[in-house]
Amino acid sequence: MTLVTISILLGLLAVVYGFITSRQVLGAGAGNERMQEIAGAIQEGAQAYLKRQYTTIAIVGVVVAVLVYVFLGVIPTIGFVLGAILSGVAGFIGMNISVRANVRTAAAAQSGLQQGLTLAFRAGAITGMLVAGLALLAIAVFYWYLTDIAGYAANDRHVIDGLVGLAFGASLISIFARLGGGIFTKAADVGADLVGKVEAGIPEDDPRNPAVIADNVGDNVGDCAGMAADLFETYVVTVGATMVLTALLFGERLGVLLEPMMALPLLIGGACIVTSIIGTYAVKLSKGKTNVMGAMYKGFAVTAILAIPLIWFVIDYALGGIGTEIGATAASIDGGAPLAEEGTAAQVVSFTGWDLFWCSVIGIAITFLIIWITEYYTGTNFRPVKSIAKASETGHGTNVIQGLAISLESTALPTLVIVAGIVSTFQIAGLMGIAYAATAMLALAGMVVALDAYGPVTDNAGGIAEMAGLDDSVREKTDLLDAVGNTTKAVTKGYAIGSAGLAALVLFAAYTTDLAEFFPGADVDFSLENPYVIVGLLLGALLPYLFGAMGMTAVGRAAGDVVKDVREQFAADPGIMEGTSKPDYAKTVDLVTKAAIKEMIIPSLLPIFAPLATYFVITMIAGQENGFAALGALLLGVIVGGLFVALSMTAGGGAWDNAKKYIEDGNHGGKGSDAHHAAVTGDTVGDPYKDTAGPAVNPMIKITNIVALLLLAALAV
Amino acid sequence: MTLVTISILLGLLAVVYGFITSRQVLGAGAGNERMQEIAGAIQEGAQAYLKRQYTTIAIVGVVVAVLVYVFLGVIPTIGFVLGAILSGVAGFIGMNISVRANVRTAAAAQSGLQQGLTLAFRAGAITGMLVAGLALLAIAVFYWYLTDIAGYAANDRHVIDGLVGLAFGASLISIFARLGGGIFTKAADVGADLVGKVEAGIPEDDPRNPAVIADNVGDNVGDCAGMAADLFETYVVTVGATMVLTALLFGERLGVLLEPMMALPLLIGGACIVTSIIGTYAVKLSKGKTNVMGAMYKGFAVTAILAIPLIWFVIDYALGGIGTEIGATAASIDGGAPLAEEGTAAQVVSFTGWDLFWCSVIGIAITFLIIWITEYYTGTNFRPVKSIAKASETGHGTNVIQGLAISLESTALPTLVIVAGIVSTFQIAGLMGIAYAATAMLALAGMVVALDAYGPVTDNAGGIAEMAGLDDSVREKTDLLDAVGNTTKAVTKGYAIGSAGLAALVLFAAYTTDLAEFFPGADVDFSLENPYVIVGLLLGALLPYLFGAMGMTAVGRAAGDVVKDVREQFAADPGIMEGTSKPDYAKTVDLVTKAAIKEMIIPSLLPIFAPLATYFVITMIAGQENGFAALGALLLGVIVGGLFVALSMTAGGGAWDNAKKYIEDGNHGGKGSDAHHAAVTGDTVGDPYKDTAGPAVNPMIKITNIVALLLLAALAV
Repeated sequence: MTLVTISILLGLLAVVYGFITSRQVLGAGAGNERMQEIAGAIQEGAQAYLKRQYTTIAIVGVVVAVLVYVFLGVIPTIGFVLGAILSGVAGFIGMNISVRANVRTAAAAQSGLQQGLTLAFRAGAITGMLVAGLALLAIAVFYWYLTDIAGYAANDRHVIDGLVGLAFGASLISIFARLGGGIFTKAADVGADLVGKVEAGIPEDDPRNPAVIADNVGDNVGDCAGMAADLFETYVVTVGATMVLTALLFGERLGVLLEPMMALPLLIGGACIVTSIIGTYAVKLSKGKTNVMGAMYKGFAVTAILAIPLIWFVIDYALGGIGTEIGATAASIDGGAPLAEEGTAAQVVSFTGWDLFWCSVIGIAITFLIIWITEYYTGTNFRPVKSIAKASETGHGTNVIQGLAISLESTALPTLVIVAGIVSTFQIAGLMGIAYAATAMLALAGMVVALDAYGPVTDNAGGIAEMAGLDDSVREKTDLLDAVGNTTKAVTKGYAIGSAGLAALVLFAAYTTDLAEFFPGADVDFSLENPYVIVGLLLGALLPYLFGAMGMTAVGRAAGDVVKDVREQFAADPGIMEGTSKPDYAKTVDLVTKAAIKEMIIPSLLPIFAPLATYFVITMIAGQENGFAALGALLLGVIVGGLFVALSMTAGGGAWDNAKKYIEDGNHGGKGSDAHHAAVTGDTVGDPYKDTAGPAVNPMIKITNIVALLLLAALAV
Repeated sequence: MTLVTISILLGLLAVVYGFITSRQVLGAGAGNERMQEIAGAIQEGAQAYLKRQYTTIAIVGVVVAVLVYVFLGVIPTIGFVLGAILSGVAGFIGMNISVRANVRTAAAAQSGLQQGLTLAFRAGAITGMLVAGLALLAIAVFYWYLTDIAGYAANDRHVIDGLVGLAFGASLISIFARLGGGIFTKAADVGADLVGKVEAGIPEDDPRNPAVIADNVGDNVGDCAGMAADLFETYVVTVGATMVLTALLFGERLGVLLEPMMALPLLIGGACIVTSIIGTYAVKLSKGKTNVMGAMYKGFAVTAILAIPLIWFVIDYALGGIGTEIGATAASIDGGAPLAEEGTAAQVVSFTGWDLFWCSVIGIAITFLIIWITEYYTGTNFRPVKSIAKASETGHGTNVIQGLAISLESTALPTLVIVAGIVSTFQIAGLMGIAYAATAMLALAGMVVALDAYGPVTDNAGGIAEMAGLDDSVREKTDLLDAVGNTTKAVTKGYAIGSAGLAALVLFAAYTTDLAEFFPGADVDFSLENPYVIVGLLLGALLPYLFGAMGMTAVGRAAGDVVKDVREQFAADPGIMEGTSKPDYAKTVDLVTKAAIKEMIIPSLLPIFAPLATYFVITMIAGQENGFAALGALLLGVIVGGLFVALSMTAGGGAWDNAKKYIEDGNHGGKGSDAHHAAVTGDTVGDPYKDTAGPAVNPMIKITNIVALLLLAALAV
């Protein structure tokens, strides 16, 4: 059995886990009729949204696929289609489980907290395993097809272009899903809050609010389907980029080690699927305790710690001994010639299996640290959230000021961790070290996505309990389950963008190596002394700002539509507020759906056209070499700018949300106090920050990079 | 008469203008006794603050001066002290005029709008001319002393180090003044609003509010003294960097052209002082109109348009013919050797006087465009402000969301303008082209500062009219005058940070050339392919975020102290609210003073220590060459990150403020409506954005760059 076949089997294992667990989840009791009715409305709304979203994406996708085919040929097109479809499948199945698990979680919470936790977490784990499993399968099967069936060499151009095409497909779905879902969820949420809590004075999740179903649908299409597509993309791009870099930097100089080295990232991914599955069973409350976050962390810790020996074993097995030297072997095969054309310090390096192992361990350590930092900035037990809650006492303005201060501050530690990761892994094994750290980070995606996808299930469960008029004790339990949701959601986003920081370096290396291969004559000056590099950096850093502005405005606009619609429904039928007649939930869902789809198009195209425009304009003015330099710098500009925008938005938004929760727990005057009103404002501001604009930056960064790689390939044809 | 002597005389002309005009301003009627009493309290408070601020800065300054002396010798130390003192003088005099012109403007507004405008604008013009004049004098006199008296060659290392020292002195004052003043003004403003408008329900500028004098003092120490120090620094750094670059890049290869080329930036500065003085007399309302902004723009347009032929003349005169070739002459003198060691495209270039002229014109055009864009984003007539006002209808949350969206969006056009400026000037005359565009931009500083320093005068005038119980018609006139203040203040900040975008490139070039000269053996890889460059970029981009977080938190904390103090005063003496006894204004002023001074220290030290830490840590880990690379990248990272943070904060804050004004003008329900309450929240959030954190980023960028240059010089000793 080849290494790739093993990876494929491990990917299938994740799918099997998803299948079995979904039988368990769907087999659980679905509550009384009223609960099922509400859940039905949510399911219907979610499906209606996804249908329209996927239809729109399909139209764009077909156009893009034709362009890919025309400019790059058939294999990248197959990769593109495969990436797009599997990404869609992961999101689609995950969401379908999620909108069925919500009501079952509410029902299970009637029996106890542990029961509710088990059900909700299993639902999340299904999405998690499907994301990791399908992503691994997408790469492994496609790679296996290209090398074993089509017979290309492991580092053949067709293989590289195919993997890039695959990543492009995943990225394109991801940016639409993240942005469309993000706009939907926050337009519904903000709109429902504004017109419900603020104007009509009815509580959250009150069935009289016509936007309440849309709000619950939004949790699923945003935090489940959108996030699944995002992490699927991050996984495919990171693991794919590591393989592409292996092929480009070393290629046949690796000799017999080429195939194992190409398969190694896949094997690491497969190994972590095994430990993730084990980890999901470790998510259990300690006896008599209600520390839900602790239970989650237990699962994550088991996954990550078990991953370390397994990665050791996998490297040892693949390379035929962990001490195998890789760079030196390659160089000696090639008669001591430098490994890459450029001969820069970044590329000539010799390392052993041990080195790759240590870099993978660093990747896992980075994941731990980022989770810990995110918990610090968004958890209710620490200074940041407490300081926002305290600032709420003096009003809306000071709440927002303190929240913005925290969001700015929250970028510091993750940046230092990422910098430390770059420096240490580069010292150990050069660029490949960075790539392996990123791969190990992403290998844990199954577990991380499980933590995140758990959020919308419990959020919905609370809503259903409220709307179905279940006993208050049920709502209390779902609230306990949901309380950690803000933190786990922030954690996933921090993790995704943090890994992007490393992956972007790998992608940039792929860009420069590609450039050297396609345009061997071009003397591209990537030095900071070249003003076109500065121009590229500035334009790149601008993208997340512009993109964030578009996302925020879209939410504001769509939320305004929701407010108008709800007002109209209230005015047309006073029976709604009296509770004697039912609002038209479907109308609001439909409205938000249309708005979200319309609003997601333009910003999604920004990262596709910006690199093209930059390259062609600068080439026209200052020649092709400066065009390449500016484009390369744009790729790094978008990560340097985007990292901070995304980190500050996701952590800040989470902190605002939990500051509100902290006050609702009875601090600073509790629910209904002035401080609470101010905290609700902060939460509203944080909503599009953390769920629309912030997380969409991650796929935006990737897509910019991949478009650049595709552009090079197209120019070279 | 040498070119430098002419520059000195033109610098003196600005000082003479300031002296004469201040006689005129101080000769105007100072209103009735009550008005003078209030103005007296403001003067006292402002002086108390400045005294304490300068004392603190002096202590830090002496320590730094000793360090400069120990590591770099006597001439940089003289430069440092000179820069620091003259920067302080410009701010000190300007503010003293400002706190005397406020009451006179209120008195003049009793006679008519034009009278009020003339007085307030003249007061602003004094600060403007002093900033430009003293900055020009600082460089010109010091340069004249070093070359004519001390006898050093124009490109001697002592001259270069002296100019860098001068810039460092100006920058150090600037960051403290911007940050201390910014924290003071916004802590007082936010605190006064929170406890006055929101809690006690009394209007702005109500004399019963104990924080009202502190608020008025804040306008002066922030927008006048702080801004003056900032622009003084920007002027000195930009013009100085152009001279340093001339010396480093070309040096004696310029032959007979060396001295004219060194003096040319000074002459351009001098020429624009003449046109700025003419421009101040063009600030007049059209007959029967009340378009204050139009009157201001007339003044600016006259200044800028007259500057074009004068700059042409100055270049023609200095070089002995505008067609003189500069690069070619230099090369031929040097026997055709390349102009710089590196031989990169960025450095070898040949250009004529015409080219420098066109680059200067582009600099002026950039200034025009940035003013126009800022007006668009912060003026009440355009979409951005209107959209925030409209979003206020649906509450605090949507107001803030839309404001944040606008603040993110507002970075796009200025970035494109700066990018276009970099590309076009670089195409024309290489790095020197960029340097001349920046110099021409800064040469207009006298007029730009005048527009800005006008703001606090009219703001105070309104406050005094209110507190002294003058007729409502007076307040209406001061309100008309004040309405443009938000825009002019935003314009100045956009201008300062925009010029920093160009100046940073020049400073980076100075860094790399310095490096090549001091460490000729070092093979520093500034390529984006070097991971230590990425590390530097990330760390650099982090600085403005961390710095912004500190500034915002400081304002929140200090504003909280103000709230507590005011509450205590109200509780201790109920007569205050009844209007029967006077609050203790001085106590609040003293409290804000102490808080602002305490809070400004740590963030101000961040840009000093961050470059040092980056260099030493990376050198330790990866060797000196990577240390230099990371440090260089940090310099660009801080501009790439800082440009967006500063632009978004200053434009966003201005837009929020004017959205409130727009609603107060009777739109969306007018004063007291729900929309107005939401807009007040947005204004409060925008306050520390636009007046504390945002504008302080500009000096922060410069100081990081200058510390790097000093570090090189110190390492080379």
